[in-house]
Amino acid sequence: MKHKFIPTFLLLFVTTFILSAGDPLPSWNNEKSKNTIIQFVDQVTNKNSKHYVEPKDRIAVFDNDGTLWAEKPVYFQLFFAMDRVKEMASDKPEWKTQEPFASILKGDPKAALKGGEKAILDLIMATHSGMSSDEYTEVVRQWVKTAKHPQTQKKYIDMIYQPMFELLVYLRDNKFQTFIMSGGGIEFMRVWAEVAYGIPPQQVVGSRITMEYEFKDGKPVLIRKPKLAFLNDEGGKVVSIQNFIGKRPIFSAGNSDGDIAMSQWTTSKEGPSLAMFVHHTDAEREWAYDRNSHIGQLDKGLDVGKEKGWLFVDIKTDWRIIYPEK
Amino acid sequence: MKHKFIPTFLLLFVTTFILSAGDPLPSWNNEKSKNTIIQFVDQVTNKNSKHYVEPKDRIAVFDNDGTLWAEKPVYFQLFFAMDRVKEMASDKPEWKTQEPFASILKGDPKAALKGGEKAILDLIMATHSGMSSDEYTEVVRQWVKTAKHPQTQKKYIDMIYQPMFELLVYLRDNKFQTFIMSGGGIEFMRVWAEVAYGIPPQQVVGSRITMEYEFKDGKPVLIRKPKLAFLNDEGGKVVSIQNFIGKRPIFSAGNSDGDIAMSQWTTSKEGPSLAMFVHHTDAEREWAYDRNSHIGQLDKGLDVGKEKGWLFVDIKTDWRIIYPEK
Repeated sequence: MKHKFIPTFLLLFVTTFILSAGDPLPSWNNEKSKNTIIQFVDQVTNKNSKHYVEPKDRIAVFDNDGTLWAEKPVYFQLFFAMDRVKEMASDKPEWKTQEPFASILKGDPKAALKGGEKAILDLIMATHSGMSSDEYTEVVRQWVKTAKHPQTQKKYIDMIYQPMFELLVYLRDNKFQTFIMSGGGIEFMRVWAEVAYGIPPQQVVGSRITMEYEFKDGKPVLIRKPKLAFLNDEGGKVVSIQNFIGKRPIFSAGNSDGDIAMSQWTTSKEGPSLAMFVHHTDAEREWAYDRNSHIGQLDKGLDVGKEKGWLFVDIKTDWRIIYPEK
Repeated sequence: MKHKFIPTFLLLFVTTFILSAGDPLPSWNNEKSKNTIIQFVDQVTNKNSKHYVEPKDRIAVFDNDGTLWAEKPVYFQLFFAMDRVKEMASDKPEWKTQEPFASILKGDPKAALKGGEKAILDLIMATHSGMSSDEYTEVVRQWVKTAKHPQTQKKYIDMIYQPMFELLVYLRDNKFQTFIMSGGGIEFMRVWAEVAYGIPPQQVVGSRITMEYEFKDGKPVLIRKPKLAFLNDEGGKVVSIQNFIGKRPIFSAGNSDGDIAMSQWTTSKEGPSLAMFVHHTDAEREWAYDRNSHIGQLDKGLDVGKEKGWLFVDIKTDWRIIYPEK
């Protein structure tokens, strides 16, 4: 006897599977974004699909600030830098009158950041250099353990996006290699990226400070110098993709104009690809911002992305929750 | 490796294992070098050993020229550059009178290289830039397919060292991650490193040229500019280890003074580590050179390494064969 009812049975089985035990993205609402992602992964992992991609070429790149964790009111690395200024101030009497340090010490970070990119660079270089790489790592480790976000009172690593964490796991379960490709500091992120995202150091790429190989007390050390070696943003992300990974991604996720180049690079590759942007639309549960934001501005990207058919994930409708539930 | 007492029963076990079915390094003679390597790997992979290292921390770094493949009479990438000069000459009439190009076109590469490092840099920059990364990759791919070494008449990728290839495989079988950390061009090596060594692009690190993200005929491209971005030699290798891998290796292999810093970095780590140098001692089957060689000079490294107890692999006595047997 022929089993005519098998297709229905199978369909039921699949639906049940997704609804119960096996939903790979439980924090995503059943909307277009979730379906688009799952369809893409199904296509590239199904050996019978014409869009099949071998595991070794399943490269996925993720921006960090605003894509994998929050970035408001300022990049969390800036909170770290400002906390460092307060800690280091007793050794730096000149900071009392020197911006951006003076304003930070007066408890007015907004005034400190009025100096724009120059102020931010001065702040980062002064607080992130003059020590060995190992020492820096230890300072970040201590900070991550205790520091809390001024508005949510959560620890910073508790402000990663749960839906994006599930996406990382889902991609890795499907034999993708997940890389961070961020404007943030490479050694800053590496301290906690493995615990927070399951991404090992060699897959975390960010902006780099100049380092020099020296000897201290007879032991080799890498000393962090107050000079930017590479700004990992915009086209720089593409240069780093080439230098660090050596092949084009088939999946990219970003949230700001700094991620346009990386998305173009991903989607101009021959074969299947998916570029997604996290669109911050939820003023109630997170922050709502795009074209006019100083941090994480998404302006040109909205136009380019819509023209190119990139996937815009709408936090308000697409995400069931924002942060991990404790 | 720090000198540690190895129980006799373990040695017996190792010897029996090698003599029976599973010799992992068949092209290595049963000499001290082979035993040192196997003992090291046994220690770090044995969960009951106090020197056990988790797989995620089993990082091994390899220099390329003179360590994984030959480098005489000059680095093979220079042969590639000289072949490029001949191909490009019709578009560059000025090269007829301009060194180092003029000498190459006259068929006198020795004279061309008399200009030292400056001549080499001019040669590399002129022949490795002015095109997209994809175009460059294609040029190297074609060259690797056909070009032959002037003395051995072998294809260059047939001049990889078979014993070192076996070592790479052996380490990976023991859950090491194997990285190349070379002074050679990163994109030059990546073209053939996966086929020749089984090392994927994201684990091949070398010197980098400056690249810029541009648009050409409406498509994004990375254009290689005639400017060195990073020289991956000496202390630079340690900086790259930190930037590209983000953790210290427990195993390093090099062959020249350019690998001293990387070896110091590896062996100054807490816990077990092994630094090895390939010592070119076999004028008959390969080349014999060390302290007075212009290419692959091993002078200071011999002294430092012997003082530190690093492993010097003597090609003449330690290697049964040099190149893969066809």
